Amino acid sequence: MSVTDMGNIRKAPIGVFDSGVGGLTVAREIMRNLPNEDIVYFGDTARVPYGSKSKDTIIRFSQQIIRFLRTQNVKAIVIACNTASALALDEVEEELDIPIIGVLKPGAKVAAATTRNGKIGVIGTESTINSQMYPKYIREQNPEVAVYGKACPLFVPLVEEGWLKDPVTEEVARRYLENLLKDGIDSLILGCTHYPLLRSLIRGVVGETVNLVNPAYETARELGELLREEGLEHPERNGQKACHQFYVSDAAEKFRNFANSILPCDIGETQKIHIEDY
Amino acid sequence: MSVTDMGNIRKAPIGVFDSGVGGLTVAREIMRNLPNEDIVYFGDTARVPYGSKSKDTIIRFSQQIIRFLRTQNVKAIVIACNTASALALDEVEEELDIPIIGVLKPGAKVAAATTRNGKIGVIGTESTINSQMYPKYIREQNPEVAVYGKACPLFVPLVEEGWLKDPVTEEVARRYLENLLKDGIDSLILGCTHYPLLRSLIRGVVGETVNLVNPAYETARELGELLREEGLEHPERNGQKACHQFYVSDAAEKFRNFANSILPCDIGETQKIHIEDY
Repeated sequence: MSVTDMGNIRKAPIGVFDSGVGGLTVAREIMRNLPNEDIVYFGDTARVPYGSKSKDTIIRFSQQIIRFLRTQNVKAIVIACNTASALALDEVEEELDIPIIGVLKPGAKVAAATTRNGKIGVIGTESTINSQMYPKYIREQNPEVAVYGKACPLFVPLVEEGWLKDPVTEEVARRYLENLLKDGIDSLILGCTHYPLLRSLIRGVVGETVNLVNPAYETARELGELLREEGLEHPERNGQKACHQFYVSDAAEKFRNFANSILPCDIGETQKIHIEDY
Repeated sequence: MSVTDMGNIRKAPIGVFDSGVGGLTVAREIMRNLPNEDIVYFGDTARVPYGSKSKDTIIRFSQQIIRFLRTQNVKAIVIACNTASALALDEVEEELDIPIIGVLKPGAKVAAATTRNGKIGVIGTESTINSQMYPKYIREQNPEVAVYGKACPLFVPLVEEGWLKDPVTEEVARRYLENLLKDGIDSLILGCTHYPLLRSLIRGVVGETVNLVNPAYETARELGELLREEGLEHPERNGQKACHQFYVSDAAEKFRNFANSILPCDIGETQKIHIEDY
């Protein structure tokens, strides 16, 4: 590859996708940590949520989305959805000739490295927890660690209802987290992109001694390392701002409102596409 | 059409579809009320839920499902999903040469006919309530009636979590229904197919004086009338049982477990299809 080609590739955007709006918490961390990088985000709002669906379906959906992102000439892809990372990363990785990372491994890695008592809790969707991929990745790092998983299917609808600091949400959290606390965990992986929005409520339930791991943050850090290793970092912009584009499969207006409430900047135009055509 | 052709058409099944498992409460009423009729049920479990999605998307999904049901030679179609009935019935009806009914009109009709004080409450998904189709249908029956709508997005996930008689669900119901009770409603339409499963909990919150209207029941009754009017009733079976078939777009096993918990009979084989191909 010529030097000019490499220069062009370095200027290409990062593709980021999620089942809907949740992955914007990952996009937010990428924007903070890698401010030179352009992002093309896709939220599969027509088929959200992924958390209760099967492996076959999630692989098929992910393949369609990756085909769409390739049309946008992305240089790397981030699966910003825990369920898709758990169920589809291994399959889609094999078919790709550009780097792709999910949110599970970075979260698993830091939890395995920082636990003091070797007891890690993981919360996520039903499909993420049932996949047993967090325990697998954590034990690859440290086979001695015990991992306790708990599916929390009501957390996403509670966040989307906006009940972030509500007594109902607190009672639900207490019930979901009760057994993990009895198991004596000292670290808790927030294994679904919506959960960081419940961070302070969860902190109140688990107390100050349990370390809360946000895979979004770790993923952005790992993406930065990957781009450096592969020589794919965007060149310095000399004051020019990065450019982010947002695509969805349904209801662009609603997505935009949610995005503008959690991202540091206004996202501008959102484009709706028929993802099944890819 | 010859007499033989009419005889064959009368033996054709009824197509029933929903975004997922909820429409099984409608299928259950059809089985009870029209025991001679065969049913082909489709649950769009790969793209569930519909309740937070846009009109365009729901129309597109409904058209695909109707094309699939036509391949099963159905004689009539029931949209057993409030959201799809609200957003897609008018559009898909125009393109069809067989009868199709939704769940909204039958529910609206009986509520308008039975209210004593002219104040009707409607609960449903965000998309159903925002569509304003229940108020439209109710006022077509009786322009004097006041209709009060309330979206209850947490009810479906609470039902699917199995928390049917839980204090958390009761607190959520109290909060959702508070203003409707202040408005003095004497009838409440359970405008989402999952809500009849919360019937006794909702009864506890609204008290004995509010009439709970279950559109599933009214729809099965209206379907019977329609088949009689059109001469499409299945002939007497002389002891032979009706035959029901179940199709889904994802995770057939999970669907089957839920179906077997709410239907009076074991549903047997469930077939998974790629609904986007239709």
